[in-house]
Amino acid sequence: MTQHDAVLFANEAFYLAFRSRDYAAMADIWASGAPVACIHPGWPPLHGRDDVLESWRGIFGGDNPPEISCHAPRAYVYGDVATVICYERVPQSYLIATNVFTREGGLWKLVHHQAGPTNGAPEAYQDEEPPQIN
Amino acid sequence: MTQHDAVLFANEAFYLAFRSRDYAAMADIWASGAPVACIHPGWPPLHGRDDVLESWRGIFGGDNPPEISCHAPRAYVYGDVATVICYERVPQSYLIATNVFTREGGLWKLVHHQAGPTNGAPEAYQDEEPPQIN
Repeated sequence: MTQHDAVLFANEAFYLAFRSRDYAAMADIWASGAPVACIHPGWPPLHGRDDVLESWRGIFGGDNPPEISCHAPRAYVYGDVATVICYERVPQSYLIATNVFTREGGLWKLVHHQAGPTNGAPEAYQDEEPPQIN
Repeated sequence: MTQHDAVLFANEAFYLAFRSRDYAAMADIWASGAPVACIHPGWPPLHGRDDVLESWRGIFGGDNPPEISCHAPRAYVYGDVATVICYERVPQSYLIATNVFTREGGLWKLVHHQAGPTNGAPEAYQDEEPPQIN
């Protein structure tokens, strides 16, 4: 597996943990040695592993299960750091996200996530209406 | 100057070029060797130096001069890659941004920018109304 593919795999694992509300997996996905930060849509930035993981605990414990999937990810590898830019399909809209990974013990770990609104859509969905939840 | 300070300096140079509509400076700020991407607020992602710089040319040539300043930047250095998370003060609101830099020839160069809305505000402004432009 190339590093490019390994980063995309780590990115997909992030979204799997997200929509599965799997806190243990999410905690393992975020770096534990390198400093981390996270910007949820509309939120102020969260700095540090404790605040970031606390936010995921809150999201997973909320009334609305996170319905989210990752589309059209593109990875950029810069040595031991990589970014992934991808669409997030959520109820009634798409978001666009930046995820930054660094290697710890040979594994790609998340150090930063920002998601926010976009008027775009992944290419496969450009002619469709945004997804609707009944 | 520490690498941490050097990254913050590069980040401030980005915002100076932005609000000065200095295309030549902006072109120099973005990496020329490493691949780049950019997500303007609400836009789909732009991939590649040509598309990214073309977007800046369009922004700088628009009718509305970009009124923007950077507040409360925080830098994270991961070897030869660094991220800066900062607020952007724009007319009537704040945005929150992620800027990713990599080192080229000993200088920090921008490889990725994402900005989007936030309901937060930099600490020094938390008790204020968002900025208003007459």
